[in-house]
Amino acid sequence: MNQTVKVQPRIQAGFMELLPAQQILFDKFLETIRETYEEFGFAPLDTPLIEISEVLLAKIGEDTKKEIYRFTKGDDDLSLRFDLTVPLARFVAMNAQNLTFPFRRYQIGKVFRGERPQKGRFREFYQCDIDILGNGELSLINDAEIPAVIYRLFSKLNIGEFVIRISNRKILTGLMESLGAGEKAESVLRIIDKLEKIGQETVRKELVDMGLSAVNADQVIEFVKITGSNKEILGKLRGMKIVNETFESGVAELETVVKLAGEFGVPEKNMQIDLSIARGLSYYTGTVYETKLLNDKVTGSVCSGGRYDDLAESYTNQSYPGVGISIGLTRLFSQLLSADIIQAEAATPAKVLVVTLDEDLNYAIEVATKLREAGVMTELYTEPDKFKKKLNYANKIGVPFVAIIGGDEIQARKVSLKNMKTGEQQTVYIEVAIKSLKA
Amino acid sequence: MNQTVKVQPRIQAGFMELLPAQQILFDKFLETIRETYEEFGFAPLDTPLIEISEVLLAKIGEDTKKEIYRFTKGDDDLSLRFDLTVPLARFVAMNAQNLTFPFRRYQIGKVFRGERPQKGRFREFYQCDIDILGNGELSLINDAEIPAVIYRLFSKLNIGEFVIRISNRKILTGLMESLGAGEKAESVLRIIDKLEKIGQETVRKELVDMGLSAVNADQVIEFVKITGSNKEILGKLRGMKIVNETFESGVAELETVVKLAGEFGVPEKNMQIDLSIARGLSYYTGTVYETKLLNDKVTGSVCSGGRYDDLAESYTNQSYPGVGISIGLTRLFSQLLSADIIQAEAATPAKVLVVTLDEDLNYAIEVATKLREAGVMTELYTEPDKFKKKLNYANKIGVPFVAIIGGDEIQARKVSLKNMKTGEQQTVYIEVAIKSLKA
Repeated sequence: MNQTVKVQPRIQAGFMELLPAQQILFDKFLETIRETYEEFGFAPLDTPLIEISEVLLAKIGEDTKKEIYRFTKGDDDLSLRFDLTVPLARFVAMNAQNLTFPFRRYQIGKVFRGERPQKGRFREFYQCDIDILGNGELSLINDAEIPAVIYRLFSKLNIGEFVIRISNRKILTGLMESLGAGEKAESVLRIIDKLEKIGQETVRKELVDMGLSAVNADQVIEFVKITGSNKEILGKLRGMKIVNETFESGVAELETVVKLAGEFGVPEKNMQIDLSIARGLSYYTGTVYETKLLNDKVTGSVCSGGRYDDLAESYTNQSYPGVGISIGLTRLFSQLLSADIIQAEAATPAKVLVVTLDEDLNYAIEVATKLREAGVMTELYTEPDKFKKKLNYANKIGVPFVAIIGGDEIQARKVSLKNMKTGEQQTVYIEVAIKSLKA
Repeated sequence: MNQTVKVQPRIQAGFMELLPAQQILFDKFLETIRETYEEFGFAPLDTPLIEISEVLLAKIGEDTKKEIYRFTKGDDDLSLRFDLTVPLARFVAMNAQNLTFPFRRYQIGKVFRGERPQKGRFREFYQCDIDILGNGELSLINDAEIPAVIYRLFSKLNIGEFVIRISNRKILTGLMESLGAGEKAESVLRIIDKLEKIGQETVRKELVDMGLSAVNADQVIEFVKITGSNKEILGKLRGMKIVNETFESGVAELETVVKLAGEFGVPEKNMQIDLSIARGLSYYTGTVYETKLLNDKVTGSVCSGGRYDDLAESYTNQSYPGVGISIGLTRLFSQLLSADIIQAEAATPAKVLVVTLDEDLNYAIEVATKLREAGVMTELYTEPDKFKKKLNYANKIGVPFVAIIGGDEIQARKVSLKNMKTGEQQTVYIEVAIKSLKA
């Protein structure tokens, strides 16, 4: 053994690294997300993790800037991507002539934010995004198809009840305009976005501190608390008789999107108008979504997004309006695991482990090869250990079946297939084993 | 339109970014690799892209050090991973008590090397690795299973004839020992590794410059040029009557591995002993592999690896011997594409595009939703464009089928399904369309 000084193996706080059984579960989430996005015709994109700082940070705020992993390499000023939206904007502006619009893309990948680590916050995490971009214009039907994707995806993920909360930023903007405070609309939206997190009193205080009158602050808070069925809320909005073009256009859009989403098969119980949904980013210009699991143990929005007028304005004069959403998968997965809503199972993708009673592996190799050729995920136990140790290994990795091979099996050219859950064991021909394993 | 100053959208040289049709093709490669690795019971691992420099660079050479993307964030000295092997070593040393050995893991992910960009070299590229690690020991059967994985994978990828070239570093090391130059063995292996790249004359010169006698340099070169079938080469090695334990052990291991790989179903034409295969890294201690496509347009090894005695020695006194391989997928894919060995096809994963003759989308939404529920990947054309523009879009993205909906189809509750390759068109019920599309 090498007795030189050792470095303590470790990783940074805020980076998720999973053991095999958990990783297999995580990968199933990735697979379901990918499959659902493709089902709706979104095409994959895979942008570099490292971008040129001047390009990536063209329009970034000071707060976000602090979080960027930025560095130089030779003469180059580089940064790790902090989301998948800015790289999409850069990609579209760069490659527009080779793309066909509407351009539907998904991207699943890690992004980096070097904030101070705290519970439930990650510095490296997966985002799973879809966006539909028009060249110059994009119809409102797309705003209704996005909830259909969310609905189908979260139904498939099978992690409990969920609701897509929807609003339209034009509504609150129009309300502010009608109150003669249109120039404060963006700040109001940013503060309202925090309602659930900081509570009504703090929101009121922030609204007033920002320059809204106490009366207007109360009006805004009462407004975003309007409840009822989607139809009732839309009725109440119409009933307010607010004469403002922005407001009316926002209400009309919201009504259309909600109606069309229903036609796309999204039940009303899974999509509810909530006027307090505002999204913090000034970026959004119309429809906004947040998705909540109806489970106290999973906090915050698990899937958010909305409509924007001009994605790539930092890079081009051509306008690309679009609509999209993002899932912060690392945080969601970590919460689901902590809350025991999902459980890791086997630490191997194999369906069966081939083990031998003695050290002769020739027939075992033949069996494993035949199983794999038939499409059965098969692990061969290769080490000359005692049989007990081999079965112990099978139990530890949680493989569902073990194919046991001893002298009798070799003679008869069979295997003894053991179901590790039930303990049931049968000595059968390989072809029969394949059938059981593929069933 | 926003007329402010624009930043030119661009990415760094040496970073591969694909258009949708190419990306879909690339993802098929990723999927086949993942599927094959899992078929052999390898479990997924996903380590952080950012590691602590002290940990990642514990044992790195000066040459490689220059290529590292290294930076500070706050007080932390961090680096982007440059391969997947060092993170594996770190992971195993950190988590050994929660792993079951032999530990079979695969990892597919991007790694970073900031070298000067040149044709065919990437600064950000995918590695696709498998490794099997023992705790203290690992049987030689694993060295034979690895070529079985390579064989199955490259057969499935369907990118032409290939050969896995195999050797064992102990053979050349033993030869050097028998020549009384054992201390030069590592340098000899490093120089021989370049034979194909720099040619025989330059290798001879480097061997002599390094301190080998001209006679010995010639002996080494003649030795690695030994040709014949696997059986013939093994016979010639035995016939040399070299009395050296390392040499004999190397020949015996090579013979066993070649024989067992045959039992794992690897045909001899796909696995050939080649004594010039040395691998540059001192890291390898036994079996070594390189895989070549039998196509002049794809140069270098597309899949390399071997056996090592002690993976995690930088981090722990516990020894983890193992065997593994790595595919540099970005370079391989880029060469295959340039050589026209593979061709991108559709720019959408959708099997069918639903288009309407007029602006009424209600029935089209219903059709698209039904198709998706039946598992058909379906894109809905959402924009109120002229029909000709819609069909033009279908042609551009290369979608195989279009489901056309006009007044007649709505009335009859049917669709007109058009095969975009043959031009054939049939008006059928949705259920019939689903059957055709799933066939």
